[in-house]
Amino acid sequence: MSRPLPPNSVIGMLGGGQLGRLMAIEAARLGFKVHVYCPEEVAPALEVCARGFQGDYADRDTLTAFAETCDVITYEFENVPARCADILSETGTTVYPPKMALEKSQDRLIEKTFLNNIGVETIRFDAVSGLDQLRALLAEYGGKGVLKRRREGYDGKGQLVIKGAFDESAAADLLAKPCILEAFCPFELEISVILVRSAEGEMRAFDPPHNIHEAGILRRSVLPAPISEDVARRAIAATEKLAEALDYVGVLALEFFVRSDGQLVANEFAPRVHNSGHWTPEGCLTGQFEQHIRAVAGWPLGPQRRVFDVEMHNLLGEDIHKLPSGFDGDVKLVGYGKKKPRPGRKMGHVVIRKNDA
Amino acid sequence: MSRPLPPNSVIGMLGGGQLGRLMAIEAARLGFKVHVYCPEEVAPALEVCARGFQGDYADRDTLTAFAETCDVITYEFENVPARCADILSETGTTVYPPKMALEKSQDRLIEKTFLNNIGVETIRFDAVSGLDQLRALLAEYGGKGVLKRRREGYDGKGQLVIKGAFDESAAADLLAKPCILEAFCPFELEISVILVRSAEGEMRAFDPPHNIHEAGILRRSVLPAPISEDVARRAIAATEKLAEALDYVGVLALEFFVRSDGQLVANEFAPRVHNSGHWTPEGCLTGQFEQHIRAVAGWPLGPQRRVFDVEMHNLLGEDIHKLPSGFDGDVKLVGYGKKKPRPGRKMGHVVIRKNDA
Repeated sequence: MSRPLPPNSVIGMLGGGQLGRLMAIEAARLGFKVHVYCPEEVAPALEVCARGFQGDYADRDTLTAFAETCDVITYEFENVPARCADILSETGTTVYPPKMALEKSQDRLIEKTFLNNIGVETIRFDAVSGLDQLRALLAEYGGKGVLKRRREGYDGKGQLVIKGAFDESAAADLLAKPCILEAFCPFELEISVILVRSAEGEMRAFDPPHNIHEAGILRRSVLPAPISEDVARRAIAATEKLAEALDYVGVLALEFFVRSDGQLVANEFAPRVHNSGHWTPEGCLTGQFEQHIRAVAGWPLGPQRRVFDVEMHNLLGEDIHKLPSGFDGDVKLVGYGKKKPRPGRKMGHVVIRKNDA
Repeated sequence: MSRPLPPNSVIGMLGGGQLGRLMAIEAARLGFKVHVYCPEEVAPALEVCARGFQGDYADRDTLTAFAETCDVITYEFENVPARCADILSETGTTVYPPKMALEKSQDRLIEKTFLNNIGVETIRFDAVSGLDQLRALLAEYGGKGVLKRRREGYDGKGQLVIKGAFDESAAADLLAKPCILEAFCPFELEISVILVRSAEGEMRAFDPPHNIHEAGILRRSVLPAPISEDVARRAIAATEKLAEALDYVGVLALEFFVRSDGQLVANEFAPRVHNSGHWTPEGCLTGQFEQHIRAVAGWPLGPQRRVFDVEMHNLLGEDIHKLPSGFDGDVKLVGYGKKKPRPGRKMGHVVIRKNDA
């Protein structure tokens, strides 16, 4: 791959969801062509790309045909099967972010162990392989904790919150696959750091948003977060450490709990653009989607100064029907092109610019 | 058509060029699907749309099939043939901007007569139908003027500048089709007003850019323009008058010469988003492409305050190869996805944000 990629080069995108749609849009603005690979016949990113490839993530022939049309490949979600990554690496087409970021982020046990090993603090956790071990660990944890599948949970799915007595059959269901138990983490608020790293190692972090979740799903991100400069600096430093340890290229997000004494506890990271960064295109000189594409294409990173105080609100399920009339004033409206507004499904978001930062 | 159009509605786009591409991108961000109709098999807008229709602008069957998939239709260039507009109006699908805007803008004689009739001053002009009449008019015009085809000229094509002796065979070539002669207009600088008008008649004008042309092609637009508030106000008022006279819906651009005494002389208008508005997505809270889509979809117009002092530079022909390395600092890079960098061909543009406005 010659870098920087010249205009009209093809960016391959694994995954057809809204993150892929928003990255594809910014890639097209930069003058690239986007080829999307996804298993679905209808998907948000397919509506804004130059070419779509429909195939399973283990479909060697279609994946290879896709890779042969691409100058670089990226992805919009971290649960790319290892087999898919292997097939792509055999084609010789560069994939960014690097495979190690996928390997470390797909399994909560590996992820948290990795964070601890590079000196990023997490809450206490243990692997759990059965109900007996769960009961034993809960005794150590003071009877409270969160049981989570090691793989493929998102938006609060695949989790069981335990406070004293608990639903043993629900726990047994989860434990049918490998799980971890995490201690409860009392915290003041949640923040995230979203940063972009170039292949040359240059890093630019966005101001950390204050993230408000409900039922495990992000509802709002608010800038500026009510945190001290010291907390922001430490959170960014930890995320930079993670990016360097992964030899990362692209946008990376790390979520933190902020405790009342200012202590930071890392929760999880995502090797991709992040929902809590959806305010960045409107709030900053360059947003996360464009920065990601610039990084994977070997283009110079854009300036990233935050220009506005902003709030981002997710539109879940039927919330999408509030568009456009439910919002007045300086509100940027973003829709994902999804048909079925199932409860809790992320259908779009709005960004409210409040005043100049 | 129910208005405002709900998310996932289909916006039809006539024309596949860069203006269509940039409108399609903003339509997708708002959550719409875009269907593009154009005669070309490969075109900038086809790379970012949910569905493309390839057909001639007089192809009734394909135009009708296209219109049947669309909730509203708009266009990215003003030379839509009358027959195409007729076919589309027979399908019953709403087309915005309205047909009158096409009719008045496609022919320089009709355009300038219309401007004068609504009280917007232009330079002196006359219809010319042959060399004898041209010579007679030139005597009245002091031997100087610009001979222009009435239809289908753009970027300085289809014109002959006359100062004294002139190439009679070139003039005769132009006069093979209906022409006008325009007097020379000595001026200080050129500006344009770009405004959006909703179907309810609400209008929002962008700050007028100072436009620098070379060889009849826009090279740069600079904000703020070195004009008084009074000049800006009068230019905006004239453009609003035009928009109202056309019962316009969408983005409209009117170009002016500003004379040394501050007198404004209207040059021509474009019933579409405009090259001299390419700085608006980066310079303002909402750019021209999004405002156009909001207007044609019946959505509330976005806030339009200019936030930065900016310059927009067109990338013509081989200029595109300056991307990305030829630009440092806070530069937004936009490519159109065109393959052949022919001399003078608009391949992309850059927007330089200088300081907060």
